[in-house]
Amino acid sequence: MAAMKVHGNPLSTATQRVLACLYEKDVEFQFVNVDMGAGEHKSENFLPLNPFGQVPAFEEGDLKLFESRAIAQYIAHEYSDEGTQLLLPGSNKTVAVLQLWKEVEAHQFDPPSTKLVYELRYKPFFGMTTDTAVAEEHEAKLAKVLDVYETRLGQSKYLACDHFTLADLHHLPNVQYLMGSSAKKLFESRPHVNAWVADITERPSWIKVQDMLKQKV
Amino acid sequence: MAAMKVHGNPLSTATQRVLACLYEKDVEFQFVNVDMGAGEHKSENFLPLNPFGQVPAFEEGDLKLFESRAIAQYIAHEYSDEGTQLLLPGSNKTVAVLQLWKEVEAHQFDPPSTKLVYELRYKPFFGMTTDTAVAEEHEAKLAKVLDVYETRLGQSKYLACDHFTLADLHHLPNVQYLMGSSAKKLFESRPHVNAWVADITERPSWIKVQDMLKQKV
Ligand SMILES: N[C@@H](CCC(=O)N[C@@H](CS)C(=O)NCC(=O)O)C(=O)O
Ligand SMILES: N[C@@H](CCC(=O)N[C@@H](CS)C(=O)NCC(=O)O)C(=O)O
Repeated sequence: MAAMKVHGNPLSTATQRVLACLYEKDVEFQFVNVDMGAGEHKSENFLPLNPFGQVPAFEEGDLKLFESRAIAQYIAHEYSDEGTQLLLPGSNKTVAVLQLWKEVEAHQFDPPSTKLVYELRYKPFFGMTTDTAVAEEHEAKLAKVLDVYETRLGQSKYLACDHFTLADLHHLPNVQYLMGSSAKKLFESRPHVNAWVADITERPSWIKVQDMLKQKV
Repeated sequence: MAAMKVHGNPLSTATQRVLACLYEKDVEFQFVNVDMGAGEHKSENFLPLNPFGQVPAFEEGDLKLFESRAIAQYIAHEYSDEGTQLLLPGSNKTVAVLQLWKEVEAHQFDPPSTKLVYELRYKPFFGMTTDTAVAEEHEAKLAKVLDVYETRLGQSKYLACDHFTLADLHHLPNVQYLMGSSAKKLFESRPHVNAWVADITERPSWIKVQDMLKQKV
């Protein structure tokens, strides 16, 4: 039995982030499906794994983690010799550049893109109506973020450096959902961003995550 | 002349985060005030330092960084032998616990607390009216986060471990602003959270940041 256990749901962006990381590393793990429709993530059994009652949660021996990016960071360090090198090893200055772009994802890209995923994908999926004003507001915010990305990706093949790292990987779930929405134009109209999106969404690890999702819906 | 340069504004929470880190490390740095009222953060001179047009920005020799938490992380690593140890050195599993609580700050605490700082402190300061419904919504969200902190801080003196780390430090700016607002009750009504707030806001590094702020307003 695999030592690593991921509790989550293939529909969840945060779960997908961890799955993509594990597939990049090509390490064995056990996936435990959390039935969110049945509220399993708020149950007595689940809360000790994540006190916020959210997926994913992670276990390896005594170590219990939650927060998708903390889990991905742990896996990338602990299994640094396996599969894809997702870090940017080197001096503190070198490492800081990866950290910078991870922070940009977390604080600039994630807030508007998560709102848009909710408005443009989840709401229609669950039979609710998109709030067009909210969607427009966050499209405008995301457009500004992608302007910065367009410049950056003109200088560097990936966000942190010339290879794919966690800084790129963290974007995959929201990028994928938005490419299946009207917000697609924000990515497609920026040539460097468009090429980056095509590249990262075609990675075999990410195709595997998409396959898990297809089996689900 | 100091090798490290911080461009920012003492009123800005993100700038305060970096200043607190530098004072904990007790390292020399130069502070360059950015006149946000005059829109200096959106000027041609500033945008090469931070393409998002936000403070803070950081320089040390060739290294240019932005995003307060990426800057703090760099300083904590580069100056690990100076001043307070803000990291949790050890195995990947040990490091992961610090990372987890930094992620909790970023993704659970920061969103509602930043909204509340805006509604309850900035808006009145700039002569605007607090939106009570928005404030209540985010107070309810913050209360749930602080319930998790109350449990955690009953088990561990600080969030990541028994010493003060970046995970605690990152909270200081929003905690301080909210302790001067009606949201104070959310912290005071939880004994472990209340003790933690008293402890971290009394740190000499933080008093220095507050002194810079007082000279400003
Ligand atoms: N910052 C967290 C976010 C986790 C999160 O929001 N998970 C969602 C699914 S993508 C969830 O469990 N939502 C249910 C809830 O919040 O009640 C992470 O990155 O792990
Ligand atoms: N995630 C960024 C946030 C930076 C930020 O929002 N800075 C504010 C001041 S606290 C700012 O410059 N606001 C002006 C603007 O966004 O135009 C960080 O942590 O450095």
